[in-house]
Amino acid sequence: MCGNCNDKHHPDEPASPARRKALLAGAGIAAASSFAVLPAQAKDSPGPVGNGPWRVRAYGNRSAEGPFEPLEIPRRALRPNDVLIDIMYCAICHSDIHIARQEWGAPYPATNFPCVPGHEIIGRVAAVGSAVTRFRPGDIAGAGAMIDSCGECENCVNDLEQYCVKGWTLNFNSPDKHLGGYNYGGFSQRVVVPERFTVRIPPGMNLAAAAPLMCAGITTFSPMQHWSVKAGQRVGVIGMGGLGHLAVKLAVARKADVTVFTSTPGKVADAKKMGAREAVVWSKPEVLQPYANSFDFLISTVPTNVPTHPITNMLRLDGTYVIVGAREPIEDVRGSGLWLQRRQVSASLMGGMAETQEFIDFCARRTIVADIELIKPDQIDRAFERIKAKDVRYRFVVDLT
Amino acid sequence: MCGNCNDKHHPDEPASPARRKALLAGAGIAAASSFAVLPAQAKDSPGPVGNGPWRVRAYGNRSAEGPFEPLEIPRRALRPNDVLIDIMYCAICHSDIHIARQEWGAPYPATNFPCVPGHEIIGRVAAVGSAVTRFRPGDIAGAGAMIDSCGECENCVNDLEQYCVKGWTLNFNSPDKHLGGYNYGGFSQRVVVPERFTVRIPPGMNLAAAAPLMCAGITTFSPMQHWSVKAGQRVGVIGMGGLGHLAVKLAVARKADVTVFTSTPGKVADAKKMGAREAVVWSKPEVLQPYANSFDFLISTVPTNVPTHPITNMLRLDGTYVIVGAREPIEDVRGSGLWLQRRQVSASLMGGMAETQEFIDFCARRTIVADIELIKPDQIDRAFERIKAKDVRYRFVVDLT
Repeated sequence: MCGNCNDKHHPDEPASPARRKALLAGAGIAAASSFAVLPAQAKDSPGPVGNGPWRVRAYGNRSAEGPFEPLEIPRRALRPNDVLIDIMYCAICHSDIHIARQEWGAPYPATNFPCVPGHEIIGRVAAVGSAVTRFRPGDIAGAGAMIDSCGECENCVNDLEQYCVKGWTLNFNSPDKHLGGYNYGGFSQRVVVPERFTVRIPPGMNLAAAAPLMCAGITTFSPMQHWSVKAGQRVGVIGMGGLGHLAVKLAVARKADVTVFTSTPGKVADAKKMGAREAVVWSKPEVLQPYANSFDFLISTVPTNVPTHPITNMLRLDGTYVIVGAREPIEDVRGSGLWLQRRQVSASLMGGMAETQEFIDFCARRTIVADIELIKPDQIDRAFERIKAKDVRYRFVVDLT
Repeated sequence: MCGNCNDKHHPDEPASPARRKALLAGAGIAAASSFAVLPAQAKDSPGPVGNGPWRVRAYGNRSAEGPFEPLEIPRRALRPNDVLIDIMYCAICHSDIHIARQEWGAPYPATNFPCVPGHEIIGRVAAVGSAVTRFRPGDIAGAGAMIDSCGECENCVNDLEQYCVKGWTLNFNSPDKHLGGYNYGGFSQRVVVPERFTVRIPPGMNLAAAAPLMCAGITTFSPMQHWSVKAGQRVGVIGMGGLGHLAVKLAVARKADVTVFTSTPGKVADAKKMGAREAVVWSKPEVLQPYANSFDFLISTVPTNVPTHPITNMLRLDGTYVIVGAREPIEDVRGSGLWLQRRQVSASLMGGMAETQEFIDFCARRTIVADIELIKPDQIDRAFERIKAKDVRYRFVVDLT
């Protein structure tokens, strides 16, 4: 086991006392301070795998109805700022299903086949480009849905790459600026990601269970940061799946008073075990009526449309209802549901990369990870079916080791 | 002309040097500090009109299609906290038309006839109840749409009566808790309003042109306060009618960079004269497209539904689109219109009474009033038609002197 990160997959290697101290003090600090103590020669080391390009094994489907099967896909040669990650774990997000099964309509792009989804990635750095400063081979890194942005707009320069006004690049199904064609995601052996879009995984984390943090986690953390969810506030989490169960853990970690609204009676006990005070089974709006004017903050993690009015009606004065599932349109928004208590409806998207690192460190300090079920790549189709049937507690993670 | 308020309708009367000084220093200060110097006997003075009840002349309609005609309506005897106002001016808000013509559906209450609307009231205090401290006969007072609330909920105790969780009382068409039946509004000779729901009108204001401030004005001021519209921010005003033209003046007073979106070419020059940098004539969403990601704050004052998505699309990161016209439902809210830049949609309602006083003082210091057209009571029907035809620059005010 590595003495730097306490990760059994990480072979031990010598580290200077200063670097060891920084790493053990937590990755947030390490990410900032360890660069200075990296031996200069390590920065430029390509590792034993060379600088690429590579052809690597992946798992994808060739049509919306087609099964997942092994494919060989290209990965570009490292540019100076690139990091090559040997993927260990990649979790399955509902968006992967939407893309692979072509379930989204406009304004979302059509799916390009073969499709290799997967965007909640944890792996080991196998090589780094010559300008990379935060990683060296052997480090554990995470990558999420976003792998590029313009870097120059006012949002990018403010570390809000997810709101890049020129549009960010997804790690799957976005035009590949380097190789042509379309990007392939994390259900694969290796991926090349710019350093800016890669986060350090602190020592001691359960790596498989940390994978869902890279999208589901940051997507629910970011709005809680932005709208300053505080101790004692009443928070409602609508939908308790991959995102929802992490939203519960994160709101509880902030000492909020959490109520879960789920359509699955079997999740009630889990919600309470995760720290929710109350869990309400609902399918009809009437069930929400007694909660009128009760919540400071509501977050919907449901991947399909639900009527907005019965939900906004649960907000207190100046409360915010934030939608993190993709919705087009947002149904049943009513004036009286908003002006009666100056409520607001918003939607939020992942997190910026600095915030994602902050989030991973937040989770590491509190031992927050997802509840997962580890599967092999040949079980992806079956996992998709089980997710759609709400039969997962709470995230499938594909083991690619 | 009165030496206290510079109002030609106000007969001169002796004032102690301390009171005169306080009044001349501005009503905001006067409202706070002049109580102490009111002669004790003035507090309990019922004035020459007695304590009521009264039967007074009003103007209302007997059916949704019926014309406005003179009516006689009751006004209750003064309770200790009541103020009797001899109405001088009452402006016409689009909500008055909606109510009188029964144009709203659920969840808005049906109209009870005869209907006397009117809720932008300026008049002279004719008598005060025994517990009233802020007014005495002869003072100029304003009253708006809201004339009562529970006074005990967390919003009421925080001076946010407009968000009373038990529901406030409108000055027209709400159940009359004292006399039974339904409240009659400001198109009348006199009205009785609790002191809490009455504001002091500072010296020197144009009283007829100040009337629209009591609803149209505070309704656009309150969201600008709440969302902290600041100097240099880009503000878009959708719709330039009674509310819209005041929104322009108020945003310009905050030194915001204001753009008006109007369907009426004839209003472009007016918008610029009021300080807007740009005025855009639009009826189709395509016209709004070039303004994508441009605005910090958008306020819609349009009394009918317009598609939301082309409007939210104009907001920058974390921008707010606030709707102050009644809308049921709010049409075409799209996920991509919100999450692309974490935009928010909200709706806002009038203002609390402390905020309304603050607003009136704000306007008095800056000589902000509405652009009005003064009419006689027998012109109300015609004014309704002209408002619906967008043929008013920018508020009709009924002269009841």
